Amino acid sequence: MVALPSVVADVLHDYGGLVRHAVRDYLPPAEPRRYLYDLVADYPARGGKMMRPSLCIAVGRALGAPLSRLLVSAAASIELMHNAMLVHDDIEDESDRRRGRPTLHSLWGIAMAINAGDALAVMSLRPLLQAARYTDPRLALRILEETERMARESAEGQALELGWRADNVTGLDERDYLEMVLKKTCWLATIHPVRLGALIAAPGRVDREGFIRFGFFLGAAFQITDDVLNLDGDEAAYGKETAGDLREGKRTLMLIHALHHAEPGDRERVTAYLRLPIEARDPGDAAWLRALMDRHGSIDYARDVARAMAWAATREFAHVFAGAPGSRDRDFLEGLITWVIERAG
Amino acid sequence: MVALPSVVADVLHDYGGLVRHAVRDYLPPAEPRRYLYDLVADYPARGGKMMRPSLCIAVGRALGAPLSRLLVSAAASIELMHNAMLVHDDIEDESDRRRGRPTLHSLWGIAMAINAGDALAVMSLRPLLQAARYTDPRLALRILEETERMARESAEGQALELGWRADNVTGLDERDYLEMVLKKTCWLATIHPVRLGALIAAPGRVDREGFIRFGFFLGAAFQITDDVLNLDGDEAAYGKETAGDLREGKRTLMLIHALHHAEPGDRERVTAYLRLPIEARDPGDAAWLRALMDRHGSIDYARDVARAMAWAATREFAHVFAGAPGSRDRDFLEGLITWVIERAG
Repeated sequence: MVALPSVVADVLHDYGGLVRHAVRDYLPPAEPRRYLYDLVADYPARGGKMMRPSLCIAVGRALGAPLSRLLVSAAASIELMHNAMLVHDDIEDESDRRRGRPTLHSLWGIAMAINAGDALAVMSLRPLLQAARYTDPRLALRILEETERMARESAEGQALELGWRADNVTGLDERDYLEMVLKKTCWLATIHPVRLGALIAAPGRVDREGFIRFGFFLGAAFQITDDVLNLDGDEAAYGKETAGDLREGKRTLMLIHALHHAEPGDRERVTAYLRLPIEARDPGDAAWLRALMDRHGSIDYARDVARAMAWAATREFAHVFAGAPGSRDRDFLEGLITWVIERAG
Repeated sequence: MVALPSVVADVLHDYGGLVRHAVRDYLPPAEPRRYLYDLVADYPARGGKMMRPSLCIAVGRALGAPLSRLLVSAAASIELMHNAMLVHDDIEDESDRRRGRPTLHSLWGIAMAINAGDALAVMSLRPLLQAARYTDPRLALRILEETERMARESAEGQALELGWRADNVTGLDERDYLEMVLKKTCWLATIHPVRLGALIAAPGRVDREGFIRFGFFLGAAFQITDDVLNLDGDEAAYGKETAGDLREGKRTLMLIHALHHAEPGDRERVTAYLRLPIEARDPGDAAWLRALMDRHGSIDYARDVARAMAWAATREFAHVFAGAPGSRDRDFLEGLITWVIERAG
């Protein structure tokens, strides 16, 4: 394993602490606590890697912005929106565990968890609305527009993934997968944080398309690695149930690769497995599917694609940050590209 | 029955048509249609009374605003947000029918319906974000802040109602009910539309607290009547399953009244019924509960409270519109107070 650059852990720690503090200010202990605000505050209090908000702050600073209230507010908004989406995603994916604990709907039921996710989503706009009081209202509105676009792209990506499962679609290729990941993962995880950082540092002056490409490659490397960790990772470090994706029938690059290379009889068995409702799927069949992926080298293949994405992200990084002087933030961003594919959880 | 003022139907028809047209512009036939945008467009295409957006436009015009793009955009945003909340409410309440057809999650499953509701909620912000391009950005931001507050109040109200059901709370009184209705119904149905109309007509000049009171009384009269119609109404006119509230165990004014006046043995039987999961509740028990409400005059009592709320709304109307000259919009608003308690569906 490649040694992870220590600047990544350091910056995630520093900016993560800042943002966690800011996030708490937007989650006051209001009533009704028992049925709403305790639920709203649960996922944010469980921690998390803080990659998304740290990315926003680091890009802003690497491009010359001060560590302003606006930059931290934008980062806090990103983290709140991320948590809101996790709540609904966990229901939609029928996930049992999140950050080492039962998912919110496992604890409180689907109805209250949907409502708490809705409240968290709307509260994620508060840092941006308040920012308009101390910054140019036009900039605040542009940030809100970017946020609306990001949330829409995320819903489109989630719709693709859910629809593929509902229709038991098995004829997907890598392009389908990458389009889904671009929308479902990259907009929120990387593209949006990077674009907000750049927008705050230099409204109107920055190569926004270049940032979309950088964010896409970085986010795709991140998501593919996440899918690999779901199969192969250490549950304690990863925080979700290992191999939960096999149980959920998630269309990962490994599944697409294995389906593509499987003998017709095996492909038929995979399709039959995926057609079952989640609760009817046999753990023995999941283990067999995992063995099929090993047999066809699907996990190694996915790791190769993640590495290729990270390589492309490095190229885009050199392009979009060509004018940025050396700094701790710049080092963090470059190091993050290695980190997303080499992390353990 | 009191004759309904024809101006109410006329204005709902006119402004409803305007807003339906505007709403369609924000729901383009984009991809993925099958898994997302067809679902997003479903509830808005089913029609609806258009009371909320018409209220916004009428208040704006009654207070002197022109029928501007901003006023129609605000109304379209309200209608989109209303539909987004219906999608999630129907899941949370386990409702089967909406506007005469199966609910979205009955058609597509819970996962895709949650996601479509999320997309619709975020798309409801688009008319407001675009408004910032042709109006004062500070006004656009204030409207967005009002929208955030409304969505938060609605989530708090929904949390109370869901929590009471989850914990099988039966010791509620009228004040609890009215607090829940203030948040769950009135903010979206009446307070928010009225405040946005007033804000657009005369930013900073209007008695905003008076509009909250007017909206509360009007919205409470509306919701109590809605609950009565659920028990007593004509299903074709009403569009949801009749007596669905009894099945769902909704804490209505009638249920609270019946519990309060029931003999201990009857109260015990109601509590036991409400403790069962929805699918285990016997229709015979629901009919018995309905008969208990009749025996104690609970429905007549609720109708009396609705009338008292309408009377209070009329008093507030005279106060907040004291300076507004006579107009069709003013007549509509006054007539609406009668309409909300006398309508058939």
